[in-house]
Amino acid sequence: MMKIEHKRLASFCSIAAALVPECRLMITKDGFNTIAVDTANVGMVSIRLPATSFSEYSPGDATEIGMDVPKWKQAIGILTQDTISLNLDPVTKKITFTDGSYTLTHTPLDPNTCRKRPNPPGLNLPASLTVDAPEFAETIAALAKIGDKVLFEAKEGGLELSTEGDTDKLRKMIPAEGKAGTGNASLFSIDYLKDISRAMREAGRITVCLGKDHPVRFDFDIDGIEAAFLLAPRIDQEGA
Amino acid sequence: MMKIEHKRLASFCSIAAALVPECRLMITKDGFNTIAVDTANVGMVSIRLPATSFSEYSPGDATEIGMDVPKWKQAIGILTQDTISLNLDPVTKKITFTDGSYTLTHTPLDPNTCRKRPNPPGLNLPASLTVDAPEFAETIAALAKIGDKVLFEAKEGGLELSTEGDTDKLRKMIPAEGKAGTGNASLFSIDYLKDISRAMREAGRITVCLGKDHPVRFDFDIDGIEAAFLLAPRIDQEGA
Amino acid sequence: MMKIEHKRLASFCSIAAALVPECRLMITKDGFNTIAVDTANVGMVSIRLPATSFSEYSPGDATEIGMDVPKWKQAIGILTQDTISLNLDPVTKKITFTDGSYTLTHTPLDPNTCRKRPNPPGLNLPASLTVDAPEFAETIAALAKIGDKVLFEAKEGGLELSTEGDTDKLRKMIPAEGKAGTGNASLFSIDYLKDISRAMREAGRITVCLGKDHPVRFDFDIDGIEAAFLLAPRIDQEGA
Repeated sequence: MMKIEHKRLASFCSIAAALVPECRLMITKDGFNTIAVDTANVGMVSIRLPATSFSEYSPGDATEIGMDVPKWKQAIGILTQDTISLNLDPVTKKITFTDGSYTLTHTPLDPNTCRKRPNPPGLNLPASLTVDAPEFAETIAALAKIGDKVLFEAKEGGLELSTEGDTDKLRKMIPAEGKAGTGNASLFSIDYLKDISRAMREAGRITVCLGKDHPVRFDFDIDGIEAAFLLAPRIDQEGA
Repeated sequence: MMKIEHKRLASFCSIAAALVPECRLMITKDGFNTIAVDTANVGMVSIRLPATSFSEYSPGDATEIGMDVPKWKQAIGILTQDTISLNLDPVTKKITFTDGSYTLTHTPLDPNTCRKRPNPPGLNLPASLTVDAPEFAETIAALAKIGDKVLFEAKEGGLELSTEGDTDKLRKMIPAEGKAGTGNASLFSIDYLKDISRAMREAGRITVCLGKDHPVRFDFDIDGIEAAFLLAPRIDQEGA
Repeated sequence: MMKIEHKRLASFCSIAAALVPECRLMITKDGFNTIAVDTANVGMVSIRLPATSFSEYSPGDATEIGMDVPKWKQAIGILTQDTISLNLDPVTKKITFTDGSYTLTHTPLDPNTCRKRPNPPGLNLPASLTVDAPEFAETIAALAKIGDKVLFEAKEGGLELSTEGDTDKLRKMIPAEGKAGTGNASLFSIDYLKDISRAMREAGRITVCLGKDHPVRFDFDIDGIEAAFLLAPRIDQEGA
């Protein structure tokens, strides 16, 4: 039996949903955790929901289940109370979600049908800038109206984002704290950034780690959930 | 000349619209009434808008007109004031709706082009449970996310509704007053229930009459309008 | 360098957008102005945004640019602050919009690819009625649910609008000030009126100039912007 605040479990699912429709979920004595890559191998998400985030946590033996992310979101959307109880049947692996009013029994995916857990690559990302999460999300939404790729540039005093369409160019400097280094700039697909930035909104602040034509990593924390997104760069920066 | 509160006439139309696009409307000295079956013969609706619901009621000789339900809803949606006046021309059968600002003249359908008024079947429905109408509507909306059929079970202390999808099962006990009897349970299509439950929301409370693999009848009252829905069961309960 | 309130520049663009996707924009020492006809030659719009509407106005030499109306609306929608600065590069003709946070550089259309500025026709419109702009817009929206043409009739004490569908007729008298004359009535397409009436809502009041089977002219003023729409009549009034 596990008990957790409704909004915390909802955040956990929303972070995963920003990148993947399914993933391998580890349930251990330390909490829930998952790490997954999207089908195009462009983005990676890792999320840790520690046991301390639950008000009651007796998960039984460590196990791995296949998490059907939209089905989990749907289940949580149906439950209306502030607290959700989860029960994992050790034999059938079925999960029962209940809020004392609705009772939903869900059959998880076979984890072997989900892609394997990736190994996070070792990366040297010299720039590390902390920005306001809602401002970052609103900026990405604005840039998405103009272009389909965003150039990230770590600068003194801020993270500059810019894009280009047929007839318009748009840029914005987001105030940031941290170290910018020199020449740390990379280009990314805006489609991924839209979903990712929305999922990070509630974090309040996010740390953006950037190199030169390297992946970007977003580190953030929502209500005790530790999470990160990693996004591969577009290689056509010159042609942007 | 007839005068009625805008929201009362709107409720009358919304109840009909939950099941049928057109029906035969009787206008007599006692008020308006209609009874109709949907094209698939699955549901029946009967509605009585008594003369006492009108602030002024001089309908002329009793008459039957064909009610084009979406057109009536549209007319009422256009009128913005709190009171609607209706005038039925005894010769042309045209109806004029006015709120003192807009004047809308509508030509009703020929009643002979509408399906005949059905005779309500005699039914023995031993269970009779009164539940909260908004809670019933919200439960149906939640169940509709998971499955396409709902099992109604009359139990001690409540009406239990449940459904099943490919990977998920959902159930909820709605607190109820009344008599449950024994073994009163039937299966219904959720599409009908969605429309019907929305139309009953404003009733506050509804009475659900249930038998064993029998139709369900919903009796309710909105602002003086007496209405009932009857819904045939699905016969494939075993396979559900 | 030119500085203007965000909402004023937004209104300027919305008025143009109600009729045309592009137009020739004159930028002179007196302000901005445009006049354009839609592709079907049914409507004409003229707008003057005087220099006094700007808090700072140094436009450089008089020039004409091609205004891509949806792109201007998009640019203004991206800027979030109350004041917008515009900068027109005299050589490249590129315009930079900035609100101190976002900087958007836009390449205008070549004005020679836009339709020529029309000459407003000399018209004798004897009726001149001033009505409430939101009430006018709401009436047009209501009529659009019933029919696709609207008959305008200048009457004592008001402007009567009416339409007809297959089974319904709808009319409304809008209270008006001014002179109605005799027999001033014309029929117009509702599609144009929907867009135009929405764009005039914020004017508070509008003056409707009407003749007998003649165009209608709407004169209005939004926050210092002087504008007019002219709409050609439908010639099939008898068949309406």
